[in-house]
Amino acid sequence: MFETAELGRKVSKQEYRKREPELHTALLEAQRKLRESDTGVVIIVSGVEGAGKGAVVNRLHQWLDARGLRTSAFWDSSDEELDRPAFWRFWRALPPRGTVGVLFGSWYTLPIIDHVFGRTSAAELDRALTRIAAFERMLAEDGALIVKFWFHLSKDAQRKRLKRDLKSGHESLSTALVKKFSKRYDRFSAVSERAIRETDSGQCPWHLIESRDRRYRDLTAGTTLLGALERRLARGDGEPQPAAEFQSRAPEIAQAHVTVLDQVNLGATLTDHAYRKRLARAQKRLRSLSWSGRKTKRNIVAVFEGWDAAGKGGAIRRVTAAMDARLYRVISVAAPTDEEKAQHYLWRFWRHVPRDGYVTIYDRSWYGRVLVERVEGFAGPREWMRAYREINDFEEQLVEHGAIVLKFWLHLDAEEQLRRFEERGVTPWKMHKITAEDWRNRERWDDYAQAVNDMVTHTSTEYAPWTLIAGNDKKHARVQVLDTFCERLEAGLADTHRR
Amino acid sequence: MFETAELGRKVSKQEYRKREPELHTALLEAQRKLRESDTGVVIIVSGVEGAGKGAVVNRLHQWLDARGLRTSAFWDSSDEELDRPAFWRFWRALPPRGTVGVLFGSWYTLPIIDHVFGRTSAAELDRALTRIAAFERMLAEDGALIVKFWFHLSKDAQRKRLKRDLKSGHESLSTALVKKFSKRYDRFSAVSERAIRETDSGQCPWHLIESRDRRYRDLTAGTTLLGALERRLARGDGEPQPAAEFQSRAPEIAQAHVTVLDQVNLGATLTDHAYRKRLARAQKRLRSLSWSGRKTKRNIVAVFEGWDAAGKGGAIRRVTAAMDARLYRVISVAAPTDEEKAQHYLWRFWRHVPRDGYVTIYDRSWYGRVLVERVEGFAGPREWMRAYREINDFEEQLVEHGAIVLKFWLHLDAEEQLRRFEERGVTPWKMHKITAEDWRNRERWDDYAQAVNDMVTHTSTEYAPWTLIAGNDKKHARVQVLDTFCERLEAGLADTHRR
Repeated sequence: MFETAELGRKVSKQEYRKREPELHTALLEAQRKLRESDTGVVIIVSGVEGAGKGAVVNRLHQWLDARGLRTSAFWDSSDEELDRPAFWRFWRALPPRGTVGVLFGSWYTLPIIDHVFGRTSAAELDRALTRIAAFERMLAEDGALIVKFWFHLSKDAQRKRLKRDLKSGHESLSTALVKKFSKRYDRFSAVSERAIRETDSGQCPWHLIESRDRRYRDLTAGTTLLGALERRLARGDGEPQPAAEFQSRAPEIAQAHVTVLDQVNLGATLTDHAYRKRLARAQKRLRSLSWSGRKTKRNIVAVFEGWDAAGKGGAIRRVTAAMDARLYRVISVAAPTDEEKAQHYLWRFWRHVPRDGYVTIYDRSWYGRVLVERVEGFAGPREWMRAYREINDFEEQLVEHGAIVLKFWLHLDAEEQLRRFEERGVTPWKMHKITAEDWRNRERWDDYAQAVNDMVTHTSTEYAPWTLIAGNDKKHARVQVLDTFCERLEAGLADTHRR
Repeated sequence: MFETAELGRKVSKQEYRKREPELHTALLEAQRKLRESDTGVVIIVSGVEGAGKGAVVNRLHQWLDARGLRTSAFWDSSDEELDRPAFWRFWRALPPRGTVGVLFGSWYTLPIIDHVFGRTSAAELDRALTRIAAFERMLAEDGALIVKFWFHLSKDAQRKRLKRDLKSGHESLSTALVKKFSKRYDRFSAVSERAIRETDSGQCPWHLIESRDRRYRDLTAGTTLLGALERRLARGDGEPQPAAEFQSRAPEIAQAHVTVLDQVNLGATLTDHAYRKRLARAQKRLRSLSWSGRKTKRNIVAVFEGWDAAGKGGAIRRVTAAMDARLYRVISVAAPTDEEKAQHYLWRFWRHVPRDGYVTIYDRSWYGRVLVERVEGFAGPREWMRAYREINDFEEQLVEHGAIVLKFWLHLDAEEQLRRFEERGVTPWKMHKITAEDWRNRERWDDYAQAVNDMVTHTSTEYAPWTLIAGNDKKHARVQVLDTFCERLEAGLADTHRR
C-alpha cells in the first residue's frame, strides 16, 4: 500500500509560490460557505512519526479562519476521560455543524499503537476497527464530512529525519516519538496498513500523502481538503450522502501524476546465457516447491495482469512448464459466459479457486474490475471503488484458509509496446494476437497507469502483495517472475501459521 | 430481543384457509415478474431447532414454481468444500439473477454453533459476523435481494416439542438436533441474539418470526417474502438499492398487532402496607449498592421511558431518594439546545455519561429517536431504523467500559392514562403536567405500542435488557423499579468481567 507514497514526488519553490495564495483564498471562501451549511468537518491528521503532522496542523491554522476552527490533540488522557468509555473524549471534540475540527491524533491512534506494542490481539484490533468504521459511518450519515489524512514517510526517510534532529540538538517531543517508532517501523507499517484498509470506505476515504517534500505534502493536503469541501458544498442540503470520490492526490500539482510504475527499472536485461541458466535453475526449484505445496495441502493462487503485449502468456508458460500438469490449471479470463453474467462479478473467480494442494493461475483476473472496467466505464465509480475492499476480503479469505496468493503486474513502456504491436502486425503467427482493442487501450495509457497505481495502493497487502515486473526485456521478466514465484512459495510454505 | 417472538400469536384455521390461496397466487405472480428482472433472491432459513425450519422450506416449495427455485442445505461438508475457504460452498449456492435460492442453514450456522460450543472466542465470532455483513452488503449492492428469516421458539415450547417427538417414537435427525440444542438453549439464544444484532442492516434486515403456531409461522413467512419481493420489483432496474423497510410482521394477519406490551400483567397491585415495607427495604438495599458502585468505580446509567402519566417522575424520585446526592444526576431530556442541535443526536447523551463510580439517570433518553421521532415523523425511516444499531453500539461501549445499564419502560393501559389525564385536569398542582401534546400522543397509542415493540426487539440486549414495568398501580410500579434496580446492580457488581 505505502509503495505509492514513496515515489519521490516534489513541488518546486516556484510552483508552491504560485499555488499557495490561490489555495489559501479558495479555502477561506469554502470555509465561509461552510459556515452557512449543515456540515461539520472532521479532519483527521495521522501518519508516520516524523512526517510533519504538527507542521500540517500549523499550516491549516495559517490557511483557515480561526473562527469556526478548533484543533484537539490526543496524546495523553485526563482522569475525566479515563473514567468514561474511550470514545467520550472524541465526542467532546466533534465540531458543531458549520465548523471545522482538526483532530491531531484520533480514534485510530490507540488501537494502532496498542497492537504495535503487542497489547492487543489481531481479533481485538479488528474489533476496534469495526467500531471505528461504524462510528465514522454514523457521523457521515448525519451529514458530517470526514477527511482522513495519512502522512507517510519511508523507513529510510524517517531515519534521516531522526539523524538530522539528533545532530542539530533540537530534540523535542516529536524526536522522542520518532526514536521510539523508528525501531518498530515495519510493524507499525503493517498495522497501519491494516487499519487504513479496514476503514477506507466510499463515504470516509483515506488520503495517503507522500510527506518527504514539505511543499508537496502541504499543498496536496490543502488541495485535497479544498476538493472535499467544494464537492460537499456543491450539493444541496438534504441530498443523500454520495460516495466520496476517491482522491489521494491533487491533479493540479505537476508531480501528482508520477505513479508507482515510474519506479520500475525497465533498463534491466539478461543475456541469453544468463537467461537459460537462471531459468533452468528457477524451474527446477519451482517443480520441487509445487510438490511441497501438494504434500502440505496448500492452495496456490497466482494472478497475472499487465499491459497488452507485456508477455503474460510467455511468463505463464515458463511457470507451468515447471509444474506437473496434474497440479495446475490456467484460467484465461475472457468475456463472461451467460451463466457468469447472471452472478456477482467475483463468482466466476470463486468457482475456480483450487483445492488444497493445487494451483490455479489466472491469466487476467478479478482485477479487471478496477482496471479495464474502471477505465472503459463498464463499472461506475461506486462499483470499482468498493471493489478494492471486496477483492481484499476475497484474497484474505484465501490466505486465511491457507492459500498462497501471488500477484504480478507485467510492465513495459509505451515504446516497447508499440514495437511489439508492429512486430505482431507483420509476423503471420502473431497477427491474431493484435486487435483494434489493443490499439484503443494504448490510447488510454495514462488512465491505465493511474488505475494500476490505485490498484497497488489499495490491494498490495501484507498477505497478498503485488510484484511489478520489469518487462521491456522478456528474458529478464520471465526470470523475475519465476524467482519471485519461488521466493513467495518458499516463504509461504515455511509460514504454516494460518490467521 | 426474543421477548417479542414469544407473544403467543396464532392464526385460526379459517383465517389460514382464507389467506393461503391469495398468498400462493400472489407469490407465483411475483416469481413470474422476478424471472424478467435482474434480481437474484436469497432466502435464509434459520432459527431455533424444533421451530419447523424444514416445514417452512417445504411450504415454500409448495407455494413457488420449481423452475427458478433451488434449495441448498448446509449441514455437512464435502471434501471438495473442506479443501477451500468456507465461503466457497455458499458462492456455489447463490441463485442466478431472476431466480430464488433457499438456503437451509447458511453462513450463519457455523459461526453461531462454533461459539455456542466454545470453539471460538467472542472476538472471533465478531470477526466472522463482520465478514458476513460485508458479504451480504456486497451481494445487495450487486442487486441481490436477501430475505433473512429467524424462526423462534421459546425454551418451554422447544422442550414440549422434544417431549412430543420422543413420546411419539418418530425420532428423526431433527429430534436429535433439538435434543442437543435444548440443553444449551440459553447459550444458543445469547449467541444468536448477538449474531442477529450485528448483521441486522437496513439493506439486509432480519425477520424474526414467532413459530409456536404453524399457521402463523408459515403465513407470516410467506407474506413477508411476498412484501419484500413486491417492493423490490416495484422499483425500476438500475435504481440504487434502498434501505429495505423494517418488517418483522405481516400486518394483514389479525394477531400480528399483538405487542410485547400485551404481555405485561397490569392487574398487579400492592397494598399500602406492603408498599411501605417493600419500598423501605429496597431503598435501604439500593443505598448500600450505590456506595458499592462508587467504591468499585462502576458507572451506572439508568434510562426511564414510558407512556405519558405512567409515573416516571415518581419512580425516579423513589430511586434518587435512596442515593447520596453527591453520587447521582438526573438528566431531564427536553427539546435540544442550539449547541445540541449542531451535533449528532447522540452527542447530548454522551456528554452526560457519568464518571466511574457515579450514576446518571436519564428521564427520557436516546430512545426518543425510535419512539417520538419515529411516530411523529421527525426522523425518517432510514434514520430511526439505523438508530437501533447506533444505540446498541453506544450502550455496548458503556458496558465494555464497566458501566451497568438499566432501562425501564413504564407501561399502563389507555383507560388508566385517561383517568390520570382527567385527574390532572382538575387538580390545581397537577394541571401544568398535562398539555395538548399529551392528548395528541394518546391518539397515536397503537403507533407508539408498535414502536415500543420494535424497540424491545432491537435493543433489549444481553448486556442492556429492557424491563417493562406494570404501571397501572403506582405503588406496584415503584417497588418493581426499585427491586429491579437492586437486582441488576447486584448482578452487575458481582460481574467484574469486562468484555
